[in-house]
Amino acid sequence: MSAAFIGVDWGSTNRRAWALAGDGRVVAGFSDARGLMAVASGSFALEAAAIRARLGDLPMLCAGMVGSARGWASAPYLACPAGLGDLAAGLVWVEAGRTAIVPGLCLARLDDPAGDVMRGEEVQLLGAVAAGLAPGDALLCQPGTHCKWARMAGSKVAGFATAMTGEMFALLKTHSLLADFLTAGVSDGAAFREGVRAGFNGDLLSQLFRIRAAALLGRRAPEDSAAYASGLLIGADVGARTLSPGARVHLLAGPALGTLYAAAIGEAGAVPIALSSEAAFIAGITEIWTRRHAH
Amino acid sequence: MSAAFIGVDWGSTNRRAWALAGDGRVVAGFSDARGLMAVASGSFALEAAAIRARLGDLPMLCAGMVGSARGWASAPYLACPAGLGDLAAGLVWVEAGRTAIVPGLCLARLDDPAGDVMRGEEVQLLGAVAAGLAPGDALLCQPGTHCKWARMAGSKVAGFATAMTGEMFALLKTHSLLADFLTAGVSDGAAFREGVRAGFNGDLLSQLFRIRAAALLGRRAPEDSAAYASGLLIGADVGARTLSPGARVHLLAGPALGTLYAAAIGEAGAVPIALSSEAAFIAGITEIWTRRHAH
Repeated sequence: MSAAFIGVDWGSTNRRAWALAGDGRVVAGFSDARGLMAVASGSFALEAAAIRARLGDLPMLCAGMVGSARGWASAPYLACPAGLGDLAAGLVWVEAGRTAIVPGLCLARLDDPAGDVMRGEEVQLLGAVAAGLAPGDALLCQPGTHCKWARMAGSKVAGFATAMTGEMFALLKTHSLLADFLTAGVSDGAAFREGVRAGFNGDLLSQLFRIRAAALLGRRAPEDSAAYASGLLIGADVGARTLSPGARVHLLAGPALGTLYAAAIGEAGAVPIALSSEAAFIAGITEIWTRRHAH
Repeated sequence: MSAAFIGVDWGSTNRRAWALAGDGRVVAGFSDARGLMAVASGSFALEAAAIRARLGDLPMLCAGMVGSARGWASAPYLACPAGLGDLAAGLVWVEAGRTAIVPGLCLARLDDPAGDVMRGEEVQLLGAVAAGLAPGDALLCQPGTHCKWARMAGSKVAGFATAMTGEMFALLKTHSLLADFLTAGVSDGAAFREGVRAGFNGDLLSQLFRIRAAALLGRRAPEDSAAYASGLLIGADVGARTLSPGARVHLLAGPALGTLYAAAIGEAGAVPIALSSEAAFIAGITEIWTRRHAH
C-alpha cells in the first residue's frame, strides 16, 4: 500500500503527522512537540520539508493553529454551518499544488456580537461523523486547554461553544493564590465528583475561593484540593451546556481528560461516548483530500 | 486631643495605621506598602515599634492578614454570626497588654463542607454598622482581589461569600492567552456594561474565551476588550448574588472599583450605596478597643 498524501494536525504545542493512503489507511506517522511555539516564524516550509523527509515526498494538508496569524499563513474562518466540502473548497495553498492549510470555523450568530472560533477541531468533528463514529446530528465534546462543544446537524458543524476550562485550571495551578493547594494529581474519585456537582451550581468565582477556605479550615484533605478544583471547573463547563437527561455526548479526548469529562457528563445525567480523536482526524483529513480531488 | 490607641489595617500588600482617640477621632495616620509580603517573618515586632515611633507609644490593635499563618501570629477564625463584641473578646495578644490581633471570621454551614473565611474585612463590615453608615440588617460588598459579600443581621455578620473576581482579572490580564487583548485600561462605559450583562448569564468559561474570538473576528474594538472582560467578571460576581429588585447594596470600596461595582449592581436592578471603608474601619476598630476595656 502506498501513501497518497500527508495529513498534519498541527497545533500550538504538539503536532501529529501521517502518511495516508487515498482511502485513509495509515502508512506511517509520528507525533512530536514541534507545534507553533517551537517553530520560528518563516521556517514552516523547512518544517514541511522535514516532514516529507520522514513520510515521503507527497502533497500535504495541514490543519490547526498552523493556519493562524502566528502560524504558516492566516487561513480564513468559515462561518457555520460548515461541512467537509466547505473545508475542502476553502483550502489555502501555501505551496502551489503541494501544501494546503485547512480553514478554521467561526460562529457568527446575529444575536451575539462575540462569536466563537476554532482551528483544527473541525477536522476531528466532521471526521468523526464521516467515519461513522458519531451520527450526523449529535453533540460532540473535545476537552482540552480550550474545550469545544459542537452541535452537529446534517453532518455539518451547526454551532459550537468554547470553554477555557483547561487553561483556567493551568492558570490557577501555576499563578493563583490557590496554587499552593493544587499540587496533587487529579483523578476521578469522591473529591472530583464533589467538585463537579458544586460546579453545576454556578458562581464559579466564589466556589474557587472556597477551595482555599476549605484548606485553611481543615475541611478537605490537602491532597484532594486539586481533584476538587478540576471537578469544579469541568462541572462548570459541563453544567453550562444544560444537557438533557440521557443525552449522548460524543467525546473526542485522550484517556486522562476523557475519563474526567465522562464522569462529569454522567453526573449531569447524560451519556458519554468515547471516540478516537486520531481516527476522527484521519477520516476527516482524508475526506478533505478526496473532495479536493473531485473539484 | 490625645490618642488612646493605634489601629492598623494590615493586609497582604498594603497597610493603613491611625492614632485614634478613645471616641474614634483621628489624631494622626499614614498608609504604606508594608503589607505582609514586604515584611520578613519574625520582624513584625520591629514593624510595630516603627509604627509606634511614628504615631506614639500606645497600645495597638491590628486587623487583617497580619493574623494569618504567614503574618505575625495565627489568630483564630470566629464562626458567624459574629459581632464586634465577639471580636473584642477574641483578641490575640502578641505583646502582652500592648499589641493585639483581631480574629478573622469563618462560615461553617453544616450543609456546606467548604465554608468561607475572611480577615480584616470584618472590622470594616461591623464598623460600618457601628458608625451608622449601614443598617444592622443589610447587604454589604467589599470589592477587591477577593470580593466579600456580607449579610448583616442584628448588627452581626450573619454570613458571607467571597469571589476571587479581582484575582481572576489579574490572572487573565497577566498570564492567560487573553493577555494580549487586555492591555487597555478599564472604565465604566458601553463595553463594560455589555460585559456585565453577559456575565449575568453565567457560563463564564465560555464567555471569557469569546473575548479572544471577538478580537480575532474584528467584532470588538481592541481597546474595549479589557473593559468588557472586567464587566464580564464583575457581572458574574454580582449576578451570582441574585439581588432582589431595588435591594440596597452598601459598597465599601475605593473610587475606581466602587464605580464599576455600582454600575454592575445598578444593571442588576439593585441600588448601590457608597460608604467610606476608612471611616468604617476606624469605627470598627475603635468599638473593639472600647469593648476590650469593658471586659
